[in-house]
Amino acid sequence: MTLRKEVRKMVSKSDKMALERIREFGKQLLEQIKRGESPYFQMPTRTKGNVMFEEGDKTLSLGGRMSTRRFLNYAHTRKFMQSVMIAAATMEYIKSDRTVGKRELYYNLKHSLPNSKQNTFEDDTESGSVLDDLEASLNILREQFHVIAKGRGSIYGDLDLRQAGDEFSCKGLGRGGWLIPGYTEDVEFLNYNADFILAIENDAMMSRLIEEKAWKKLNCLLVTGEGMFPRGVRRFVKRMHEELKLPVIAFVDGDPWGFYIYSVLKYGSIQLAHLSDRYAVPDAKYLGMTMDDIETYGLEHVTEKLKDIDRKKIKEEMQYPWFKHSPEWMRQLKLMAEKGVRIEQQALANKSLAFVAEKYLPEKVEEGKFLP
Amino acid sequence: MTLRKEVRKMVSKSDKMALERIREFGKQLLEQIKRGESPYFQMPTRTKGNVMFEEGDKTLSLGGRMSTRRFLNYAHTRKFMQSVMIAAATMEYIKSDRTVGKRELYYNLKHSLPNSKQNTFEDDTESGSVLDDLEASLNILREQFHVIAKGRGSIYGDLDLRQAGDEFSCKGLGRGGWLIPGYTEDVEFLNYNADFILAIENDAMMSRLIEEKAWKKLNCLLVTGEGMFPRGVRRFVKRMHEELKLPVIAFVDGDPWGFYIYSVLKYGSIQLAHLSDRYAVPDAKYLGMTMDDIETYGLEHVTEKLKDIDRKKIKEEMQYPWFKHSPEWMRQLKLMAEKGVRIEQQALANKSLAFVAEKYLPEKVEEGKFLP
Repeated sequence: MTLRKEVRKMVSKSDKMALERIREFGKQLLEQIKRGESPYFQMPTRTKGNVMFEEGDKTLSLGGRMSTRRFLNYAHTRKFMQSVMIAAATMEYIKSDRTVGKRELYYNLKHSLPNSKQNTFEDDTESGSVLDDLEASLNILREQFHVIAKGRGSIYGDLDLRQAGDEFSCKGLGRGGWLIPGYTEDVEFLNYNADFILAIENDAMMSRLIEEKAWKKLNCLLVTGEGMFPRGVRRFVKRMHEELKLPVIAFVDGDPWGFYIYSVLKYGSIQLAHLSDRYAVPDAKYLGMTMDDIETYGLEHVTEKLKDIDRKKIKEEMQYPWFKHSPEWMRQLKLMAEKGVRIEQQALANKSLAFVAEKYLPEKVEEGKFLP
Repeated sequence: MTLRKEVRKMVSKSDKMALERIREFGKQLLEQIKRGESPYFQMPTRTKGNVMFEEGDKTLSLGGRMSTRRFLNYAHTRKFMQSVMIAAATMEYIKSDRTVGKRELYYNLKHSLPNSKQNTFEDDTESGSVLDDLEASLNILREQFHVIAKGRGSIYGDLDLRQAGDEFSCKGLGRGGWLIPGYTEDVEFLNYNADFILAIENDAMMSRLIEEKAWKKLNCLLVTGEGMFPRGVRRFVKRMHEELKLPVIAFVDGDPWGFYIYSVLKYGSIQLAHLSDRYAVPDAKYLGMTMDDIETYGLEHVTEKLKDIDRKKIKEEMQYPWFKHSPEWMRQLKLMAEKGVRIEQQALANKSLAFVAEKYLPEKVEEGKFLP
């Protein structure tokens, strides 16, 4: 119990803020009711039409349009009830220092309403969407509500952390690594020795770089999200970037999907536009794979032919505001379409297994050869 | 370098055996050539018709049928060349203490044959299938060739390990855990304090149990494969089971997919029938979720309706020899089909978040309420 109390103290800042906002939310509703009004609350509209690319911040964010949710509006009543239920539940989660998964939240709150055949929630899409609304309305991260995203990602490197009363290092873990959990709001950074964060697309590339001790040679932290970086991993990368002042360098496949992973890491996603400031890393850089790498490193015979779906995605990305106005990125996208090929990170193994750690990465980092 | 040498000594047993068998393989081919014969080698046939359920061992394994691969058989030449290439390459991997992913292996070995337009390998399916042949022929695990499976899984609990010169604990890692790497052949078990291994289907359930400190309360090691247990995780579980003499207890969703995960954990899979003895845990037990849990714990309103694909899988599983001859399992499968519902692990959150760790699991473990 002492331990739990100690942990509580550590996370109090994030938790305190969340608790205050939820209480404030409840108070407002109560006052509206006392005044004889139909209770309501407001939130930014999250439809695509209200999502903008901020040239200043260089992130996707929400415009100024707001929606109102009213209890005594027949079309809103169900969602209103659900919002209040979730707000109340998350308050309990925070107080008991528990975190819940998205599906667990749904199961935790599902029950039949008295004297009716109505269920509080029919599926986790319903609860998830209400949670998104609450996030936007109260301007609190889902994680700060103690509702967690899937983990699925890991880190390796010279970084000491404290979480849930434990102190541990992200190096010295054999060939494995520290599994980044869905909830990292309470992670404290104790010590680190690294010049940058290398964000790696591919799980197998992560293994290669751990094995080659690349984190030591390059003096960096290796992070992977095993494909598309899940929310929990992006949030953790963002915190390291901000609090440890470490640059983020992306190392992904040279194809529209790798470019997309980079995009989301750097600018945010449409779904989470209301939270870009807490997920996106606008000054992230792109190390590779690039279309130029194919020639530079003689990888012509280990490219993969583009499929229709790849070409479609390339066209789509040429319309992204951040690519559209970047000559370097438009050149990459055009080169890819012209050559009709993509190049995977692991294709570097064709030179030799050690090549990526001994030549490719050190050269690029040394010369600062990055795409914006 | 001293470190690397030390590691080399530690893993020497598995590596030594692999190196010997590969050398023996090469020698045989050489002798055949010297005798003026067309070189050839043999391997067990891996088609479904040669896969059997061993009632004695209680695992899937290969029957006695063998195939021969001959260099001077036009239909075999390409595969023969590929087999020798891979054998030679894995020898280098072992000697340099490197492990490679399946796709990395393909990239590492792909090149054009001199004076021809032929590539050594066209894709990683080709190299993967030859690797499977070599595994069966030389009776060496893919991992012992230093070719690794995807990791994607984690462990939490009171277990100290040594790998690649590092010593570390699988507890005290905050809300995270140790990411189980694809290669665990060189893991040494130093110390542990646990009565059993709890093999958990769901990532979010793993987080719940870490948070509730279930590994401490139940004195067990928590392992998850995040859905279907990948090969690397199964191999690690098998090693812990054998070397630490820890029983394996499965905790998965109460649906045909959870049953299937359990099946593969316990009996092996058709694809890896030639290796069941090194992956399968024939005396694993099934804790839940069961169809009876729905009534016992009052979970009727948080079941999910079966879909057509679920019903199809149930019918299929009723034909599995190990379910077919088990009255307990046939009862579960029939109950599921009759009720028309499935029950997820996380549905237990409907009682309370702590319920799974404070009541459900302790009761089942205490009373030994398992399915065979």
